Amino acid sequence: MTERKPTPSGVRGAADRLAGQVTRTPLLPLDHGGRRYWVKAECLQQGGSFKLRGATNRLTQLGEAERARGVVAFSSGNHAQGVALAARRLGIAAAIVMPSDAPKVKVEATRAAGAEIIFYDRATESREEIGARLAAERGATLVPSFDDVDVIEGQGSVGVEIEAQLGHAPERLLVPCGGGGLAAGIALALPETSVKIVEPEGWDDMARSLAAGRIVPVEEPAPPTRCDALQTKRVSPFTFGALMEAGARGVAVGEADIEVAMAFAFAKLRIVAEPGGAVALAALLSGKAGEVPDGSVVVVSGGNVDPALYAEILRAAPTS
Amino acid sequence: MTERKPTPSGVRGAADRLAGQVTRTPLLPLDHGGRRYWVKAECLQQGGSFKLRGATNRLTQLGEAERARGVVAFSSGNHAQGVALAARRLGIAAAIVMPSDAPKVKVEATRAAGAEIIFYDRATESREEIGARLAAERGATLVPSFDDVDVIEGQGSVGVEIEAQLGHAPERLLVPCGGGGLAAGIALALPETSVKIVEPEGWDDMARSLAAGRIVPVEEPAPPTRCDALQTKRVSPFTFGALMEAGARGVAVGEADIEVAMAFAFAKLRIVAEPGGAVALAALLSGKAGEVPDGSVVVVSGGNVDPALYAEILRAAPTS
Repeated sequence: MTERKPTPSGVRGAADRLAGQVTRTPLLPLDHGGRRYWVKAECLQQGGSFKLRGATNRLTQLGEAERARGVVAFSSGNHAQGVALAARRLGIAAAIVMPSDAPKVKVEATRAAGAEIIFYDRATESREEIGARLAAERGATLVPSFDDVDVIEGQGSVGVEIEAQLGHAPERLLVPCGGGGLAAGIALALPETSVKIVEPEGWDDMARSLAAGRIVPVEEPAPPTRCDALQTKRVSPFTFGALMEAGARGVAVGEADIEVAMAFAFAKLRIVAEPGGAVALAALLSGKAGEVPDGSVVVVSGGNVDPALYAEILRAAPTS
Repeated sequence: MTERKPTPSGVRGAADRLAGQVTRTPLLPLDHGGRRYWVKAECLQQGGSFKLRGATNRLTQLGEAERARGVVAFSSGNHAQGVALAARRLGIAAAIVMPSDAPKVKVEATRAAGAEIIFYDRATESREEIGARLAAERGATLVPSFDDVDVIEGQGSVGVEIEAQLGHAPERLLVPCGGGGLAAGIALALPETSVKIVEPEGWDDMARSLAAGRIVPVEEPAPPTRCDALQTKRVSPFTFGALMEAGARGVAVGEADIEVAMAFAFAKLRIVAEPGGAVALAALLSGKAGEVPDGSVVVVSGGNVDPALYAEILRAAPTS
């Protein structure tokens, strides 16, 4: 193990490596409150979230012997799909440890991408232990969902694309945060940009960590949330460190804010946003992000959501 | 009036004119049946459909005096929004004649874009007469939804973008067809591409016209369809002519095929497709387009749909 940390130049290298292997997702204009914002629609990425970026950046750098022994990952679903897709393209066997209550669409898509799935019980079992044991038994490489330099640098390619698409770095950027891989990667890519990370209420450990200047975990018991992709109980020194150095701050949004944002994404942007993917948009629309300057970028990070849930939200939420 | 016809060079000129004024919508990869296709997601265009392109191309070419007298259009909704948005940006007053049964989302969005709305009864009144009368009274310019050289050339910018994004013209392209403005513009932009136009069953007058070698109207009574955007009873000599010269052919899809395609767009592409916008995708998925070669492009032309209808379709349709 080296002591390498994720760096801006590592992010640039990842972006070069990923060009042509991932979708260059669009920046969609969003007119709101008399201002124009830009939505980076990463829900349109292959696999339905930004996770293909980090997984591809990690897997393409494995040696021949490592590839032959396969990879293992644990994930509620988006990282699972990212790793499964990246592995299939490279001809690498992938085993994914998923919670038994993961959204059906995410389980099906991971299986469809050719991965072996091992279920665990979120309440009684440790996915970290199961993943570590599997990796040891098989000699396989464990691909962490955010606590990994290559993964973080791969996610940062989102920031490189945003700068290229706008023609300049945005003044402000709002981004969903679970473990913080995407947010940290973007902060490294865009050092001039003020990054605001967004989490669900009660799961705002990154925001509290940034305010405290040290990593603090989610306070138990954490409230229920529909944001399955953001239920991370402790962030990584890599992600915390990059965001702390960037001077990032965080804000939390409620479940009702998220439903309004999902309905807005559907009706005004014509994109499908999953709950965890919609939190940054929710922070903008609810006003909880405070004053957001004209030209700011909002990342919608994923769109893997059970259609039945979306249908329920579309029926319940205001359409305008 | 000149005798000018829409031309490939006119389409190129329109594409140059529109650069930066419309969203360069993404080409999203779609893996299906062991092949990779590309979806041109024009539902992500501003205003939710390709219509902003033709409207902007037409309106930017009006003189100062014409701009001052305003514009008039009739439309069930997508052209309405395209004209309203383009007019607002140019500081031109827009009056839109809409059927009283137009989807609520389309009426609201047209009003939100600052246009004056005049409703008419689809069963008893003629929108052409109302539009012509309004234009005459006000000295305003009538902006047709498809029977217009500048409008067709503007829509053709979709084809110019596709070629630039792929790096070459696709062998085959499937595109929804109402009046045929989008299909004709694309055929002019991509003369080497085999264009297949797709219509709802019973509304396949362009397909029958192309087969007959002359314009034939929709046979009355036409069956009900959810494709409000494609209920055009007779195509234009401009659109028919361009598609005839290109050797285009057509195919029709049923309402059930369209619902499956809308659910697929949601779950696999994470985009919102309205019924009329999803017909080309429906032709691919249902097999009704026949053998579609690897690398072909499918246009999803619009995403303005009442959330309640989508919710109903998501509940009813298979999700995989």
